[in-house]
Amino acid sequence: MKKISILGSTGSVGTQTLDVIAHDPDSYRVEGLAAGTNLPLLIEQVRQFKPSKVSVATKELAAQLKPHVPSTTAVFYGEEGMMEVAAGTEADLVVTAVVGSQGLKPTLAAIEAGKQIAIANKETLVSAGHLVTELAAKHGVALLPVDSEHSAIFQCLNGESPSTISKLTLTASGGAFRDRTREELYGVTLEDALKHPNWSMGAKITIDSATMANKGLEVIEAHWLFQVSYDQIEVILHQESTIHSMVEFADYSVIAQLGNPDMRVPIQYALTYPNRKKTPTAPLRLAELGKLHFKPMDMERFPCLAMAYESGRLGGTAPAVYNAANEIAVSRFMKGEITFLQIEEIIERVLNKHQLIPSPDLDQVLQTDEWAREAAGRIVF
Amino acid sequence: MKKISILGSTGSVGTQTLDVIAHDPDSYRVEGLAAGTNLPLLIEQVRQFKPSKVSVATKELAAQLKPHVPSTTAVFYGEEGMMEVAAGTEADLVVTAVVGSQGLKPTLAAIEAGKQIAIANKETLVSAGHLVTELAAKHGVALLPVDSEHSAIFQCLNGESPSTISKLTLTASGGAFRDRTREELYGVTLEDALKHPNWSMGAKITIDSATMANKGLEVIEAHWLFQVSYDQIEVILHQESTIHSMVEFADYSVIAQLGNPDMRVPIQYALTYPNRKKTPTAPLRLAELGKLHFKPMDMERFPCLAMAYESGRLGGTAPAVYNAANEIAVSRFMKGEITFLQIEEIIERVLNKHQLIPSPDLDQVLQTDEWAREAAGRIVF
Repeated sequence: MKKISILGSTGSVGTQTLDVIAHDPDSYRVEGLAAGTNLPLLIEQVRQFKPSKVSVATKELAAQLKPHVPSTTAVFYGEEGMMEVAAGTEADLVVTAVVGSQGLKPTLAAIEAGKQIAIANKETLVSAGHLVTELAAKHGVALLPVDSEHSAIFQCLNGESPSTISKLTLTASGGAFRDRTREELYGVTLEDALKHPNWSMGAKITIDSATMANKGLEVIEAHWLFQVSYDQIEVILHQESTIHSMVEFADYSVIAQLGNPDMRVPIQYALTYPNRKKTPTAPLRLAELGKLHFKPMDMERFPCLAMAYESGRLGGTAPAVYNAANEIAVSRFMKGEITFLQIEEIIERVLNKHQLIPSPDLDQVLQTDEWAREAAGRIVF
Repeated sequence: MKKISILGSTGSVGTQTLDVIAHDPDSYRVEGLAAGTNLPLLIEQVRQFKPSKVSVATKELAAQLKPHVPSTTAVFYGEEGMMEVAAGTEADLVVTAVVGSQGLKPTLAAIEAGKQIAIANKETLVSAGHLVTELAAKHGVALLPVDSEHSAIFQCLNGESPSTISKLTLTASGGAFRDRTREELYGVTLEDALKHPNWSMGAKITIDSATMANKGLEVIEAHWLFQVSYDQIEVILHQESTIHSMVEFADYSVIAQLGNPDMRVPIQYALTYPNRKKTPTAPLRLAELGKLHFKPMDMERFPCLAMAYESGRLGGTAPAVYNAANEIAVSRFMKGEITFLQIEEIIERVLNKHQLIPSPDLDQVLQTDEWAREAAGRIVF
């Protein structure tokens, strides 16, 4: 029986993680759940999975929650509450499924506590990849990717020697606007941006898919997870999202991982690794799909991806700035403050203003993150 | 340095094996070469690779060859000569690249001598899979597949537990006649059948691709190599031959191996396994290919595949009969004695006449093989 804590239990990956666990209840025990503000769903989750610790965003929410959970479940709140769920339970494995750079400190705390990490919060590795991977190595902690692309690469590397990797290829569906030219992006609405053609995901990541910032974050995440140079990471357009990603080896043999777009497969793989078990999903039927399409990535059409590569190659605090500026820009777009194309403009302007710190410590990463958020919030058009 | 003997050195796989070796001469030493009747090419090969033993088809050919090879190279002939090259050298690994069931006895001899086997002669496993796999297990000998499909599956299984295999999917290009209906197969010529759309291979296997008997032999080979039931082996049409084959696991995650159609990649993998080294081939460019196509296999369009499944499920001597009847039928087609569609008719008729032996020993396999050849040769239309 594997003991599990989930940071971000009411989000898309969090609920799908609990769905995987609910399909195989004898194999798992839920130790902790950290959520934000969705009390009704969290209450349901606590009743079903009976964790020993839960956490919510604020003190007020914690007070509201308390009467609804059994006395065996301790209630916490805020950043410290999330740290408690991350590092203060009996969990063997922590699923980091919160959105944004708020996942960084709890993830580091979980690693220090020796927990295995199922990493669904890509912003953690983007902002502080050098700190996270170094700490994980020090504590002998596995970073198990949950993102479908990284899970794919992780699976393709099974039994292979990392030194024989020639190239990683991340596939990108192209997001909600894949069939539009740049000119056709003027005036697109939030509703348009939230229509992802293949995957059912949270709002932020769906917009990131439309701007291709999501693929940019994945490129940086892949750099840290698999310790390859940016020149060895390629992105191609593949509208069906059937090949989730692939690895080319030294002999030009390519290993790919395929499946229907269902996050429960990579989520479960992170939970069962190195084993595999039946997943509550439908098998892939390639002969019924008929065709798979591939196109070269167009960096001019998707400048958010180009900026991710640039930030990644610059290193230091640059990826943290890229990520923080993007988070604020997306949230401003979701509030209707800016247009879709101004997301990339904000990222570009904040990156241009930023003073790079080459090897930042945690405080410097966090300060830079804060600076970039403020800078991104202040830009007016 | 790996020491290698090649059975069938002047054939398609044999010459491509030597090409791989020639590209990395410091990693290999050629110990033995067995060929058939192509003396000029064999003489060239002996001069370049200086094996300690060579063998040709007949005593006469051996006498002709002798003056052309250095005195350090011993010359043998016939079945015993091939056995000598298979089992009587210092080789660590024997590439069994002869065509047809003549490969069976030398392969068994090489296994008994403790040689690793790079198995390119699928008829060996088809005719006597139970004997070959049992003997290999007994001597702790690895059977390393060279066929691109089986190499693909073998690579997809790296680091995975065989008990989690849910399904193997072999891809089939469809061969020279993939776009023709059955009606359009009346009167096709040998020349037509020899035009394989993707792979550069020997004549027999190219015709087997057109009839789909090749895929049938591969299904039976996969059953033995990977120890899965026939219900777990699927064939789909994939005209580009880019995905060479794939494995679906218990969690419905699919791992596939891809590449350009170049036999030197799987050949080299069998030589370097478990390592990978640069191959003299072009990298795959999916974005340039643009599309991959998949179609369900049509067993009525390709009865040779349906009969392979039936023979495999019957087991015992049935696959040996399937293979031997096919070998004779193809050779009769190549001589112009029969039409293309009579290949499958011969296989069907011989299978129908055959008295099944459920667990044949080697003699019974060889006798059945001989009986089936004779029966297939006698059928007149």
